[in-house]
Amino acid sequence: MPRLLGLFLFLLISAPAANADDGYRLWLKYDLISNPQLRKAYASMARFITCSENDPVSKTACLELQAGLQGLLGRPVLIQASGSKPGTIELLLLPKGAPDADNLGKDGFKIQSARGRLTIVAAQPSGLLYGAFELLRYIQTEGKTGELSGVRRPRVQFRMLNHWDNPLGTIERGYAGASLWKWYELPETIDPRYRDYARANASIGINAVVVNNVNASARFLTPEYLSKVKALADVLRPYSIKVFLSINFASPKILGKLKTSDPLDPQVRAWWQEKVREVYSYVPDFGGFLVKANSEGEPGPQEHGRTHADGANMLADAFRPHGGLVIWRAFVYGPDPKGDRFKEAYQEFKPLDGQFAPNVVVQVKNGPIDFQPREPFHPLFGAMPRTPLAMEFQITQEYLGFSTNLVFLAPLFKECLDSDTYARGKGSTVARVVDGSVHDYPVTVMAGVANTGSDRNWTGHSMSQANWYAFGRLAWDHQHSSARIAEEWTRMTLTQDPSAVATIKDILLGSRETYVRFTTPMGLHHIMGQGIHFGPEPWLARSARPDWTSIYYHRADSIGLGFDRTSQGSQALSLYAPEVQKQWSHPDSCELPYLLWFHHIPWDKTLSSGRTLWDELCFRYYAGVEEVAVIQARWKTVQSQVDPEWFADVQGRLAAQHREALNWRDACVLYFQTFSQKPLPPGLTPPKRTLEEMKRIVEIYQLR
Amino acid sequence: MPRLLGLFLFLLISAPAANADDGYRLWLKYDLISNPQLRKAYASMARFITCSENDPVSKTACLELQAGLQGLLGRPVLIQASGSKPGTIELLLLPKGAPDADNLGKDGFKIQSARGRLTIVAAQPSGLLYGAFELLRYIQTEGKTGELSGVRRPRVQFRMLNHWDNPLGTIERGYAGASLWKWYELPETIDPRYRDYARANASIGINAVVVNNVNASARFLTPEYLSKVKALADVLRPYSIKVFLSINFASPKILGKLKTSDPLDPQVRAWWQEKVREVYSYVPDFGGFLVKANSEGEPGPQEHGRTHADGANMLADAFRPHGGLVIWRAFVYGPDPKGDRFKEAYQEFKPLDGQFAPNVVVQVKNGPIDFQPREPFHPLFGAMPRTPLAMEFQITQEYLGFSTNLVFLAPLFKECLDSDTYARGKGSTVARVVDGSVHDYPVTVMAGVANTGSDRNWTGHSMSQANWYAFGRLAWDHQHSSARIAEEWTRMTLTQDPSAVATIKDILLGSRETYVRFTTPMGLHHIMGQGIHFGPEPWLARSARPDWTSIYYHRADSIGLGFDRTSQGSQALSLYAPEVQKQWSHPDSCELPYLLWFHHIPWDKTLSSGRTLWDELCFRYYAGVEEVAVIQARWKTVQSQVDPEWFADVQGRLAAQHREALNWRDACVLYFQTFSQKPLPPGLTPPKRTLEEMKRIVEIYQLR
Repeated sequence: MPRLLGLFLFLLISAPAANADDGYRLWLKYDLISNPQLRKAYASMARFITCSENDPVSKTACLELQAGLQGLLGRPVLIQASGSKPGTIELLLLPKGAPDADNLGKDGFKIQSARGRLTIVAAQPSGLLYGAFELLRYIQTEGKTGELSGVRRPRVQFRMLNHWDNPLGTIERGYAGASLWKWYELPETIDPRYRDYARANASIGINAVVVNNVNASARFLTPEYLSKVKALADVLRPYSIKVFLSINFASPKILGKLKTSDPLDPQVRAWWQEKVREVYSYVPDFGGFLVKANSEGEPGPQEHGRTHADGANMLADAFRPHGGLVIWRAFVYGPDPKGDRFKEAYQEFKPLDGQFAPNVVVQVKNGPIDFQPREPFHPLFGAMPRTPLAMEFQITQEYLGFSTNLVFLAPLFKECLDSDTYARGKGSTVARVVDGSVHDYPVTVMAGVANTGSDRNWTGHSMSQANWYAFGRLAWDHQHSSARIAEEWTRMTLTQDPSAVATIKDILLGSRETYVRFTTPMGLHHIMGQGIHFGPEPWLARSARPDWTSIYYHRADSIGLGFDRTSQGSQALSLYAPEVQKQWSHPDSCELPYLLWFHHIPWDKTLSSGRTLWDELCFRYYAGVEEVAVIQARWKTVQSQVDPEWFADVQGRLAAQHREALNWRDACVLYFQTFSQKPLPPGLTPPKRTLEEMKRIVEIYQLR
Repeated sequence: MPRLLGLFLFLLISAPAANADDGYRLWLKYDLISNPQLRKAYASMARFITCSENDPVSKTACLELQAGLQGLLGRPVLIQASGSKPGTIELLLLPKGAPDADNLGKDGFKIQSARGRLTIVAAQPSGLLYGAFELLRYIQTEGKTGELSGVRRPRVQFRMLNHWDNPLGTIERGYAGASLWKWYELPETIDPRYRDYARANASIGINAVVVNNVNASARFLTPEYLSKVKALADVLRPYSIKVFLSINFASPKILGKLKTSDPLDPQVRAWWQEKVREVYSYVPDFGGFLVKANSEGEPGPQEHGRTHADGANMLADAFRPHGGLVIWRAFVYGPDPKGDRFKEAYQEFKPLDGQFAPNVVVQVKNGPIDFQPREPFHPLFGAMPRTPLAMEFQITQEYLGFSTNLVFLAPLFKECLDSDTYARGKGSTVARVVDGSVHDYPVTVMAGVANTGSDRNWTGHSMSQANWYAFGRLAWDHQHSSARIAEEWTRMTLTQDPSAVATIKDILLGSRETYVRFTTPMGLHHIMGQGIHFGPEPWLARSARPDWTSIYYHRADSIGLGFDRTSQGSQALSLYAPEVQKQWSHPDSCELPYLLWFHHIPWDKTLSSGRTLWDELCFRYYAGVEEVAVIQARWKTVQSQVDPEWFADVQGRLAAQHREALNWRDACVLYFQTFSQKPLPPGLTPPKRTLEEMKRIVEIYQLR
């Protein structure tokens, strides 16, 4: 008896450390449901799983469901080939040609409950997989965020992550450690993380992955690397995830030793056809290529006097026999100091509408510049009815505070998706362009630049896991609200305590607006540090290209602030439909969040807020910092409801965010003050530091 | 009853996954001792811990001992302020001036056992810490690798890791993910890994850490970064680890905006004095600076017409009031195509002997070139009696197969340490130079370039953990044998099964010789791929510098192979003591492992092995590949005795190693054959691939 007691004490002592949540499990925690009544209720409906399918994806659905239920219920859930006792969950694949099959589509599913039995019905194995995760999510959220029964279908066919991961293990714009992909060790060594990565993706409906950086090394198309890519594809396939590759357009020269990479050259075309055939010999269900061409120094068809369509169509030809896609990025812009980068992708691509082969998709960033904290939607959306346009969001926080800032991105994604292009009249939202319903696109894609890395918690900032989650949920269904996604994620990941859930949801939902306030309020954009995009450098006046400076964008002078893109200015506004132009074309009626995107506003002008531009600018910078302090205080209130390791991690990062917010505020207010020549509005305490001191702080982060 | 049974079944099912060993715990596993008799015996001697000291390091000793014992014994071990019941382990600090204190020194300890009580006695808290870990090691190894009782003292004062970690999170020559140090998140966020890193170091006696790359960013000396460094130092201090920084010699210009960084300029001297004072205001027990100057493009005193001694002494002056060290690296060489890089550090530093301030240490790599799989010891060892020389080993496997090759480095370290310099007659080994006993150095340092990173298992290749361990154990006492270290590590980390221990020990002990055989047999060196140091590129003939090519080193021609460094050649041999010269000066008596380091040998010459050079070369390349296959087969035999995740990880990497070994063999044999113009010796099957194919494979890894 004393021995047993000793053991018990020992377990008590060591338990907290062992159970500390290091974030590795993401939202797939499957810890025992703490409410015993609820657990009993769920347990009674989940005693057996029936699945008669033998394909790898259906099997995955079955095993994932079992593992999840066993964790949540704390008891075994048996898998059987058939059976219909009460408490059975049946995974059922419809026979081909069944009446319901069309309705469910490739990835859809139906969950129904009758006589104590739950059935998940799908037309394809992937539907069973998504249905299994839907059921788990329902239980994990204790049924608080939606109904269980009903039909669910994704609105977009390819829900895709783009990894900007380099062959040597670094990640361009990655803030969560090194690359997940250990290329040197592949194909022989399979890191167990690959499978856990696949599980996480499948659980939120992501079904496509570009594994390498768009600034692409040609090495990925060599047999050596294709065998590595194959090894990854083999891990991802049972989770219904297709692999894509970014390619280097000059590969025919680099790898094939041809004299040119001209897309109209017969040898070049033959080289790509053979290469694509070779890729499929390694990965029979290969997804396709993602291409960054003639952009920021990458090779492309224009060097050979050809168009983007010529380049894309050549590759599309090579893919035709295999059913793969060519995803061609529209992120192009020229270094013209008199130009407006805002317009350049539009001007390049709009005239090519209708010229692309049917298996080409053009991938467009959400806004016209580059993943700023707030951008108007890209004017190409709605402007290319005959070319499927993919959405490219950035999940990694390149311009949103790296891994030290808590910024929940669902509201940013939604803001863009919900914007109305008026392409086919009112209601032609960006979301409906991307999901194909406005222009009847035959292929639909939503891509997110991944925020994953080798850090134990995957995403650097623990709370940034929510952004991976949110992207997947919105790619599946853009009609999900940010609030619902925030609540789902919080309940699955952090706590079920109602008050803590409410607090964390609030923190998440307001966090992006806070970030905008202390960095780029009222439509300021691209005034961050050179190279180091997490800090301020509004004074940046020289760079390798004029459109990489800050002054190119904010245009501060003694009169005022902002980029005039009206008909008196760069005319970029004219790229939008008349209804959209109307929203933004007049400085008096333009909503404040977009004001400086489109107008050069005098410092003294009184805004709709009742304050002058200068005063409003200062108020927003100061408010942003205050809001970070409020988030810090609110986070403290949930301490008893979340895991201690997780709590401490977020608390530390919030403190760093507060320090950085002060840097942004002081740097920007002091710098713009050199133009406005005005004192701070009453009630605001002037920065304790000088502009010179702020410049020195930013410089530190730019030293080698 | 059925419910309980169900729960039990469930636990059984999920247990293996939960217990899979991902390598995070290193050699500090503290799993329950499986032998019940042994456990009982240890438990009877470890019921209580008594410690009356209240300083942070003694407390750490006490808590680490408790945590370790509780894990190993599976029962609580109580800490008490006093007590002497049987089963008590007492941690006892000697009073100042006690007769034994001098004998134990700063870090030493004595373990003694009497009347059922164990006592760990030390003169300083750090000694208690090392004693606690010694006791745990004794139990972890089940007493199989040495006695428990007795006095232990480190032979070297500073047992140091050099991290070549960059501020943005990359690691120069790192193969285990990103940097451990998350500079952006510091000082507010303290990654729990920092403490686990400190524990691991303390457990093997490492007491000093340079946290940043020798190619140093000046940013580490800014207040912003010093506050981050302070946060790290605060975590390491309770583990008796001092923090050092690598510095950029041009910091006075870069940070101080001075016009020069000339070490004799009064303003520059004043700047450094103030800067060092500032560093100590953040970290009162700061260790000192590590300096790479006038080496591979780094700034240094020579730009100002000053010597290395001028530069080092200026910094030493600044440290004098604070007791810190200046560690100045001797890794310098000039790009002279007619020169011999072998000699250059010697020629630069030998004349400066006696000119360095007392708190300067010159840090010398183990060999004269650069961490090759085998090098003769550096000729500076033994040649600078008036300048303390630190040893610089490389633990990260820059030239030893990255993270895909199993190479246990203790034999490499030992080979160098046991080499006799004959500086003060026979027995003046490199080890005794470094530990100060040959020249009575007042300061002694052994440094290892770390192989740690953010990978879950810390070191990329799981088995490379043994190299971190081995470095620490040898820095503590260079008389430990490789075999003992291998056995300790294996028992602590992998298994206690006698047959498996024997097999793994064998694999470890032979692995470095195998790597030498398939890459650079018989004294070949520096014939690896440009940039990509893990693969072969013996044909490399052009680079930014002639001493970065391969042909500079192997000197293959129609007559033979190897670098003539005798009196007829570069005369590098003359830098050694006559006794050493004699070992290597004649091609007939020079031991084969060093032959091509010192001689250009005709292809047809018959060697001591009875084979011609060409035949022996081929045999060794082929034998190396065969040996990898043998290691693979032997690893399979331990499958049932080691953790499955660990087993699979090593199995995969061994398969990659075999592929790479074949690449080395085929590339080198085919390339050297173009000079020897001879067929392979009978019995060896010619490579299936052509030299051109081998070149293409290597090129792949050099593409962007």
